[in-house]
Amino acid sequence: MRAEIVCVGSELLLGDIVDTHTQYLARRLSSIGIDLHHSTAVGDNLARVVDCLRHATGRSDLVLTTGGLGPTDDDLTREAIAELFGETPTVDPVLADGLRTFFELRKVPMTTNNLKQAWLIPSAHAITNDRGTAPGWWVTKLGKTIIAMPGPPGEMHHMWEHEIEPRLATGEAVIRSRTLKLFNISESRVDELLKPLTPAANPTTAIYAKQDGIQVRITAKAPNDAAAMSAIAVTEKETRRILGDVVWGVDDDTLDSVAVSLLNARVATVAIGESVTAGLLTSMLAGNDRSAACFRGGLVVPDSEGVEQRAPDLARLALKRFPADIGIGVSGHLVPGSNPEMDEFEIAILWPRRGIETVVTQRARHFRRRAMGAYHALDELRKLLSLE
Amino acid sequence: MRAEIVCVGSELLLGDIVDTHTQYLARRLSSIGIDLHHSTAVGDNLARVVDCLRHATGRSDLVLTTGGLGPTDDDLTREAIAELFGETPTVDPVLADGLRTFFELRKVPMTTNNLKQAWLIPSAHAITNDRGTAPGWWVTKLGKTIIAMPGPPGEMHHMWEHEIEPRLATGEAVIRSRTLKLFNISESRVDELLKPLTPAANPTTAIYAKQDGIQVRITAKAPNDAAAMSAIAVTEKETRRILGDVVWGVDDDTLDSVAVSLLNARVATVAIGESVTAGLLTSMLAGNDRSAACFRGGLVVPDSEGVEQRAPDLARLALKRFPADIGIGVSGHLVPGSNPEMDEFEIAILWPRRGIETVVTQRARHFRRRAMGAYHALDELRKLLSLE
Repeated sequence: MRAEIVCVGSELLLGDIVDTHTQYLARRLSSIGIDLHHSTAVGDNLARVVDCLRHATGRSDLVLTTGGLGPTDDDLTREAIAELFGETPTVDPVLADGLRTFFELRKVPMTTNNLKQAWLIPSAHAITNDRGTAPGWWVTKLGKTIIAMPGPPGEMHHMWEHEIEPRLATGEAVIRSRTLKLFNISESRVDELLKPLTPAANPTTAIYAKQDGIQVRITAKAPNDAAAMSAIAVTEKETRRILGDVVWGVDDDTLDSVAVSLLNARVATVAIGESVTAGLLTSMLAGNDRSAACFRGGLVVPDSEGVEQRAPDLARLALKRFPADIGIGVSGHLVPGSNPEMDEFEIAILWPRRGIETVVTQRARHFRRRAMGAYHALDELRKLLSLE
Repeated sequence: MRAEIVCVGSELLLGDIVDTHTQYLARRLSSIGIDLHHSTAVGDNLARVVDCLRHATGRSDLVLTTGGLGPTDDDLTREAIAELFGETPTVDPVLADGLRTFFELRKVPMTTNNLKQAWLIPSAHAITNDRGTAPGWWVTKLGKTIIAMPGPPGEMHHMWEHEIEPRLATGEAVIRSRTLKLFNISESRVDELLKPLTPAANPTTAIYAKQDGIQVRITAKAPNDAAAMSAIAVTEKETRRILGDVVWGVDDDTLDSVAVSLLNARVATVAIGESVTAGLLTSMLAGNDRSAACFRGGLVVPDSEGVEQRAPDLARLALKRFPADIGIGVSGHLVPGSNPEMDEFEIAILWPRRGIETVVTQRARHFRRRAMGAYHALDELRKLLSLE
């Protein structure tokens, strides 16, 4: 089944709010194996909403609308569906009684415009709304289904989970995915390396560029969870074989959570000395909820271009100031005589008891040097600890 | 002029990410008086993207696309625009040279698929991308304009603000806004205080809750910039009179940029000692681009619940380690015998030469203690420096 979303509400197109309905519904739909092909935001304008619904029902089997079910004149979703299907809304006595009770219970006078929320058209069934005054509409006509839901997230989510998803869930197929996270490799290089995998229709492999590196998303459609996950496992194994140790995590892993896990697993403690990264590295590592066991302290010195303080010096400084096994230092400077937009930075990892003293240099664009310096330091730490 | 947005990327329809482009562009468009009528998300599927662009150009004069400009096979926006207008992409030698330089600077091999990013069609002009490898496309044909921008927000925003908005701004009716930023006051309290202002139709006053406090957005529509700004000035003056010193900044101000400005204006230097905030305060202050003149160093110690290290001790520790005028200390602990979700933290600001030693305690929910501790410290510093 092919679904699409139509979010009704001028506030979306004035920039007053961010649309979170699409992400919510996208996840719920994929969990029951329904493909989502489009999501459109349209303002509170009858002609435009009708046009969107006509286009949507033309190309999709299932159209989910959010918003426009309120009592006011600019709530037009009901009118638009009625016009699209050439039907006339009438007040449903049962819904009208329900509304009256709702207002009596809250000792609030019910205004006449609230009666709009008791409207139905012949092809529409009302969907119970336990969280508000606007019932949804479930409309089926000419082989197409339009499900109209209220805009407030609390009402919409509750209605979706209790009234709609259970009836839509066919149990035919589920869609599951797993994301591999990579660092220090370009998107195009990953694309090239994974060429043999990407044409596959199921599981599919998609590549995304994120601030903390490249992500490879493996998505499988299968009759059930177990089948989907084992299909993903096969592709993941092959992907890891091709990419090697640039893969640092999966799904919700972050570079700091991976580093902290490795430190705790090896019962190793760490102290940080940083200049160019301006405290970002310390805040990422010390800010991790499980870092109490491994973080011993951080020293942040000004990134003064004049004084050259090298990464190993900063690492030693940190080890001298704080009682830790491992000292990490990060320093940076503009690359002499090169593009002023490029920075070179140095990462040192000292582990005296193991006789380890690693120093690597990396580059990043000037405006990203803080984040990239911290990411590179965490990645170097990960690689080193993975070997130990 | 009637505009609409087409966001290209399957990740939007799989629920991987929330679309923030629409809100960003909606606000920018309204600020130059261009009406936004629709925003559509579509997956990485050539036929579907072409269909969306055809429908969009059919009903709107200006179509803004985001995403699908990467180097990989599932980046299809260029292909879709070319197909829509029946033109054939060719590699532009100038763009290709630019790409090669970009990769040489990073010492990264340029792969052949990157050449896609040097494509142009006869109707397209390239739009410079100072933040990445994908130039945008500015395509005008048959009275319609399509502007294709990259998906990563950092690249898209920079391109919009520097290359696109300046050329689109027509100078008819303009909509301008100014945002006042507040801290340490609740949204409902602000709403209550500003009741007398909010009914006004022009300028309008809207209240938003953000992570770093409450924002009051004043928006005026007028024939020109000067008229809009002076209408805003009147409302701003009244708003500031009502709210007093909880107002810490406007528009793009951040708590750290405001603190750094005040420090630099007073030629005062600062050193930080923090535990509960885990380096976040140092990274915010030292991470500011203008902090070279005022930041002398930061010391981050573990937030060990056992050892009680008070904020004044941490401030002294920082002043002892680094040569600064002002020492800031932040420590924290669970409130004894209170809701385990609530944390109490202590902020100390020592300025020996002025004989200043301020210590305040604040509370925040446990999961927000790091951010709130840093915000409160910066806000206390702001208030103190504003008085000096």
